[in-house]
Amino acid sequence: MATTSEPDGGAAAGLSRTYRDALLNDVIPFWQNHSPDRECGGYFTCLDRAGAVFDTDKFLWLQARQVWTFAHLYNTVEPRKDWLETAQLGADFLAAHGRAENGSFYYALTREGRPLSQPWNIFTDAFAAMGFAEYGRAARDPLAVEIALRTYRLFEKRKTSPKGRFSKSVPGARPLESLALRMIHLNLLLVMGDLLEEAEARNTAIALIDDVLTRFRHPGLGILLENVPAGGGVSDTFEGRMVNPGHGLEVLWMALAAAERWGRADAIPLLVRSMLSVAEYGWDREYGGLLYRLDILGKPPMQIEWDRKMWWVFAEAILAFSMAYEHTRSPECLAWFRRFHDYTWAHFVDPQYGEWYGYLNREGRPLLDLKGNRWKGCYHVPRALLESARALDRSHEGSRRNPQAPGR
Amino acid sequence: MATTSEPDGGAAAGLSRTYRDALLNDVIPFWQNHSPDRECGGYFTCLDRAGAVFDTDKFLWLQARQVWTFAHLYNTVEPRKDWLETAQLGADFLAAHGRAENGSFYYALTREGRPLSQPWNIFTDAFAAMGFAEYGRAARDPLAVEIALRTYRLFEKRKTSPKGRFSKSVPGARPLESLALRMIHLNLLLVMGDLLEEAEARNTAIALIDDVLTRFRHPGLGILLENVPAGGGVSDTFEGRMVNPGHGLEVLWMALAAAERWGRADAIPLLVRSMLSVAEYGWDREYGGLLYRLDILGKPPMQIEWDRKMWWVFAEAILAFSMAYEHTRSPECLAWFRRFHDYTWAHFVDPQYGEWYGYLNREGRPLLDLKGNRWKGCYHVPRALLESARALDRSHEGSRRNPQAPGR
Repeated sequence: MATTSEPDGGAAAGLSRTYRDALLNDVIPFWQNHSPDRECGGYFTCLDRAGAVFDTDKFLWLQARQVWTFAHLYNTVEPRKDWLETAQLGADFLAAHGRAENGSFYYALTREGRPLSQPWNIFTDAFAAMGFAEYGRAARDPLAVEIALRTYRLFEKRKTSPKGRFSKSVPGARPLESLALRMIHLNLLLVMGDLLEEAEARNTAIALIDDVLTRFRHPGLGILLENVPAGGGVSDTFEGRMVNPGHGLEVLWMALAAAERWGRADAIPLLVRSMLSVAEYGWDREYGGLLYRLDILGKPPMQIEWDRKMWWVFAEAILAFSMAYEHTRSPECLAWFRRFHDYTWAHFVDPQYGEWYGYLNREGRPLLDLKGNRWKGCYHVPRALLESARALDRSHEGSRRNPQAPGR
Repeated sequence: MATTSEPDGGAAAGLSRTYRDALLNDVIPFWQNHSPDRECGGYFTCLDRAGAVFDTDKFLWLQARQVWTFAHLYNTVEPRKDWLETAQLGADFLAAHGRAENGSFYYALTREGRPLSQPWNIFTDAFAAMGFAEYGRAARDPLAVEIALRTYRLFEKRKTSPKGRFSKSVPGARPLESLALRMIHLNLLLVMGDLLEEAEARNTAIALIDDVLTRFRHPGLGILLENVPAGGGVSDTFEGRMVNPGHGLEVLWMALAAAERWGRADAIPLLVRSMLSVAEYGWDREYGGLLYRLDILGKPPMQIEWDRKMWWVFAEAILAFSMAYEHTRSPECLAWFRRFHDYTWAHFVDPQYGEWYGYLNREGRPLLDLKGNRWKGCYHVPRALLESARALDRSHEGSRRNPQAPGR
């Protein structure tokens, strides 16, 4: 029901139906039809525009994330047997082949599960922990929960030297703190905080939120930096100047969700203001859409792919602003939500073969004819569709309960 | 003097003046004016469009290559004191700060010379060997020659496991042979073959030429693959399917130069035919220019920057086809040479501030407002201008000496 308290008369809230429909009748069926490897276990993620498999290597970020996605659907949407089976296909493959001797997860395996790329990447462990935590909940499998917890503790240990012996940096030469590590830790807590002691989860989450807002948020611009000196300020180096607007929005919605869950609702207004700053800063005034990488001092960005439009950036932006709108009911948040929605539906969604293109050029045309590869899998898009639909629903419910929406 | 034996009446040969002029009155002055770090030694390579320094880190590929460039100009164009001094500025910096304990060169240093990035990259050693070899010749400095030779032996030792302890690949999991290692080895021999025993240099060069033509050249398509299985054929993996046309042209002109120098002129026709195949295969029929990365099976390329137009690709293409034309006097080679020349002068050359843009989008517009960064330095462009001018001159001389040009 539209109410006058919603700036657009409820039209955005109506998009929750669009998102659920896209999730359940397009995106999830696409991956269920094309991705399971029923012969060797796990998933194919290198899928062309129509869903045909063009490479069979198994990248463990994507294997673990897809476990999470299907287990999460099972846990929170509907306990469908086929979803649980799909999650199990990946969880079993990861449990059988994923771990090196030290318990860390390899970065890539062959189709059959032979190790290809060493366990050099701490994020692989993080995604594995999330996948097993969510799957353990779905399958009521204590062994999966145990893997999740053990991998979480490994993640914590690796945090101070994430790449360990694989690091190419000279230790201590240029100590910068990483936003990505904060983001993934927040993500871990949101997914598996209930498996930890409540005080541990809460204290860790609150420290991370404060860290994001006090160390990574540029006080003048309100946007987030990817790497900051331990002592504060901006490091005038390639890494220190780097701005990744989509990443900024992703960490901000995670911080918002954590703030709500662990009693730091007072931080929400600043988190939302930061989202607005990031979107304003990263928006491509020439061609529309959010740019991929920028340099905070306006120098040439390090990445030659800086002007690409990336699927995950838009998924995270839609989710960030649907949540921002839910919490503020501000027309500005709603306008940004609509802007990202409109760009995405005009450019990323493939009405002919389903799912989203992964990569567009600056002008908004697909530059790779694919729906999945070694980086794009079944994760950002379904997560954003599901959680945005929920935020829009809550927002709509809230506006009926409390038409004045004075903000919290 | 134009002669009738030249398909374009000598117009291409006339471009040698254009190239020498660009080299001596634009490109080299640009780097001499903006790049020397007279305070700390070495060179700044992160230069914006007008030449202003925007980052001061020192990437050793680029430090060593610039030493080579200025020493090479001194050795082969004119013994100008300022060129030798510029070469020395980098050589002294590298000798003082560049090497780790094991003798390998770091990948990056701070402006002052403190190590930032470990000596994980075998190509750094290769470029360092070339830089010191050429500088030793210029300065008649036996210590520099000794560093060059010691580093060459280190390169040879590292070849079987180029990344050593920094490798993320699981040993033996997917053994592929690398074209890049063959190319850099050919390059080393061309630069410092005279410092080795003649038989060693010749035998190594001939083995590398044969390797390129028999293992890396796709028999059906005539183009080069970047990574091939030891047993031959195409590995249907991301790495195995990768085609890098600019890299192909670079290795082909090096093989051609080596074939001429070490008595394998019989290989030249096939090398030139391969150049034509590569250019034909990699040319962007939609927007012109050579694409950066392709997949030999027509699958989506791994790199999201696959459609960029890269400065070094065009420098190497101009050089490859000026040499191909010199050796064959074929109108087809001349036409490709002109095509690359015209594209480059229309899109890469910056008539306002000098030098070349580094990176264009697919449509040919500059996408980073810079002349140098952590990858683009003073190397591909001056080398191509100088060596192409020479090839065009020889071609012109040859056509006067031997108007029928029956090929060799």
